[in-house]
Amino acid sequence: MKLYDFAMAPNARRVRMFAAEKGIELDLIVVDLSKREQMGAEFQAINPRLAVPALVLDDGTLLTESVAICRYLEEIHPEPALFGSGALGKAVVEMWHRRVELEGLQAVADGVRNSVDFFAGRAISGPIDFAQIPQLAERGKQRVDSFYDMLDERLGTCEYIAGAEFSIADIAALIGCDFAKVLKKRIGEDTPNLKRWYDAVSSRPSASA
Amino acid sequence: MKLYDFAMAPNARRVRMFAAEKGIELDLIVVDLSKREQMGAEFQAINPRLAVPALVLDDGTLLTESVAICRYLEEIHPEPALFGSGALGKAVVEMWHRRVELEGLQAVADGVRNSVDFFAGRAISGPIDFAQIPQLAERGKQRVDSFYDMLDERLGTCEYIAGAEFSIADIAALIGCDFAKVLKKRIGEDTPNLKRWYDAVSSRPSASA
Repeated sequence: MKLYDFAMAPNARRVRMFAAEKGIELDLIVVDLSKREQMGAEFQAINPRLAVPALVLDDGTLLTESVAICRYLEEIHPEPALFGSGALGKAVVEMWHRRVELEGLQAVADGVRNSVDFFAGRAISGPIDFAQIPQLAERGKQRVDSFYDMLDERLGTCEYIAGAEFSIADIAALIGCDFAKVLKKRIGEDTPNLKRWYDAVSSRPSASA
Repeated sequence: MKLYDFAMAPNARRVRMFAAEKGIELDLIVVDLSKREQMGAEFQAINPRLAVPALVLDDGTLLTESVAICRYLEEIHPEPALFGSGALGKAVVEMWHRRVELEGLQAVADGVRNSVDFFAGRAISGPIDFAQIPQLAERGKQRVDSFYDMLDERLGTCEYIAGAEFSIADIAALIGCDFAKVLKKRIGEDTPNLKRWYDAVSSRPSASA
């Protein structure tokens, strides 16, 4: 399996960290987003969505969307279960993962892609160019603060975001928190439960995958 | 199981349609969003996220997020499989479901919630009020057109969005297409493959659940 990857891309990091937690080694192929290599003809022939991560199976099948790639890895390598166990356990992980995505990752992405010069004219990844919307960047930054408060409250009640077990919800939240540093949002002592969690999850070996 | 529901809410419809496809009967409790009942103290005690759908299990456990609720229903009632079958099949459904959500549902929601008077000051559902961003509404409308073109191309190659089998990706796309009518976006003969799919999926009994 080949993973088309870029170290600084949050969604690519989600897949690398997920694979590392399971001990799956992926053949990484760097697509240099800083040089816009994902927009070139060579990569377009591999992934017409012009985005990383993209997984290509040994038979040539293409999988895009980071969570779909993680889902595939979970199915072929079920342990440790990162999408939860049992009917309710899986639903609870799905619930928290989606809250992290909708309230956190989306907010961070809105903030970064609509304010950072590098993304001028490229406010959404993919084949179509969109102008930045400054008001959306401001809304994103405001929502990141609410997201951190929400996580701090949640993490006062359990060790990990979806409960007692580490899951993909923690991976998604970690990449969101680290991406939010671009917006000068850092996790400090005013959110002590989130800080405890952040320090613990950041120090897992998979966090540097 | 009680489902807190509102007929016109797209994400609530996703759960109703999903359950109907599986023949699961849910005890529906109407939360009248047109009267903002979801913001009141009574519903806040049930779901602090102030949104429908919300599923309450017989033991009192609360599940929010429509896809998490669907995931639970899939686990307790696996047939017909609406999240796909087999490792690759599940990953492909996840990929297409997410594309429908990110490129379609989110675009429609951006368009509707940032332009319709009813949502003034309520551009995002949930406990925090956000002002509408007119530029985001325009971007949403533009993205709906791209989404329809993308689906039309895809549906020229297979019967349903994720391939040969009906899945949650079709349910999500249908609720998106119907919600987009608020933006005066209708599916016509200029996207014939999408029209063929839309007519077929709309006529399933579950579509009126």
